[in-house]
Amino acid sequence: MTRTLYELAGADANRRFSPFCWRIRLALEHKDLPFEGRPWRFTETGALAFSGSRTVPVLVDGERTIADSGRIAAYLEEAYPDRPSLFGGPGGQALTRFVEAWTDGVLHPALVPLLLADIHDHLRPEDQDYFRQSREARFGKPLEAVCPDREAQLATFRRTLSPLRHTLKSQPFLGGEAPLYADYAVAGAFLWARTVSGTVLLEADDPVAAWRDRILARLGADSRALTDAA
Amino acid sequence: MTRTLYELAGADANRRFSPFCWRIRLALEHKDLPFEGRPWRFTETGALAFSGSRTVPVLVDGERTIADSGRIAAYLEEAYPDRPSLFGGPGGQALTRFVEAWTDGVLHPALVPLLLADIHDHLRPEDQDYFRQSREARFGKPLEAVCPDREAQLATFRRTLSPLRHTLKSQPFLGGEAPLYADYAVAGAFLWARTVSGTVLLEADDPVAAWRDRILARLGADSRALTDAA
Repeated sequence: MTRTLYELAGADANRRFSPFCWRIRLALEHKDLPFEGRPWRFTETGALAFSGSRTVPVLVDGERTIADSGRIAAYLEEAYPDRPSLFGGPGGQALTRFVEAWTDGVLHPALVPLLLADIHDHLRPEDQDYFRQSREARFGKPLEAVCPDREAQLATFRRTLSPLRHTLKSQPFLGGEAPLYADYAVAGAFLWARTVSGTVLLEADDPVAAWRDRILARLGADSRALTDAA
Repeated sequence: MTRTLYELAGADANRRFSPFCWRIRLALEHKDLPFEGRPWRFTETGALAFSGSRTVPVLVDGERTIADSGRIAAYLEEAYPDRPSLFGGPGGQALTRFVEAWTDGVLHPALVPLLLADIHDHLRPEDQDYFRQSREARFGKPLEAVCPDREAQLATFRRTLSPLRHTLKSQPFLGGEAPLYADYAVAGAFLWARTVSGTVLLEADDPVAAWRDRILARLGADSRALTDAA
């Protein structure tokens, strides 16, 4: 059976930078399910038409096509119950939605101003036009004006991490002794940053940095190559 | 076997306002474990000396004495595994720590400025002195100066709830179809407010308000009496 993950890519096909696609890459590795990661760019809407989705990640798993990272994770848990669990039980699955909501609604907004210019610079020209227009509409200002003070934004980002940081003082992963999908939901933000930006997001002695390194150390060979190439 | 929960109280012994004590009250009800709630005031340190803790909640469960809400919840889950689970599995137990960290480190700091004056007014005079001194040291300013703009603070509090609000759009409780300890960790904040303050924290159409009402509707008779008396 073929298994294909459509992933957002930059001008360089190996620059895979979507935090939501990284969640599924890590989830597939967690369940030890081999897959081909297929690069997809913002303006290649025709290539996703078969899926009914306009955005990635899209997973084609044999006869099944699933879009949206949360739905894909739930699908993988249900379709492969004998593989390592992504949620650690029904309570974990329910609470993962809170971690996702915090990541999407609090953490990403604190991070994205630091990355916008770098993302733009790594896209193909035709994707740059789409990216600039859609993001300038979202932020209501020119891309270059979204982050007037990088140091202040970085401080905001680090403060925003406080619940994660506090949790990691009592356990090595959000999931406990080993990572769960909730870890990947948050780690996607750091892989997003890592694949487009040279900004040092964390202080070296931050417990969050040690957690991120534990996640990176578990990456499969293909994923490691993608993060090293970036 | 006797089971006693030491709970923070105001001048009125039935004004039980600690968010951390409410977590355990709700957890004991969740596990259908009868208990006596014993009022305790900030300056009654001698009454807790037996426990080795200087703060409540303290639970005396037969021969066992446990302090700290997180430890008590973990104890209850381990000691009463045949009762309804507080965590819904090991993943849920691990991720609950993130919800607690968010509640303690993000939600409570957004709420406490709105409650400080009311808490103070509901204490015995000797507890008022302790409360004022300890809180003014913590905030570095007079109690009356901690919240110069209630409307702005209320707006901050409501914004802070966004990950909870978003999660509740896809499920009735943080724990999924039914509440778990993670719900109680957050609900403690609202019971804290309810028992000391008349401030309307939430807009009527806020999904968080509907969730809070679902939690309140599940309270046992004794807990309901305490919230109604407040």
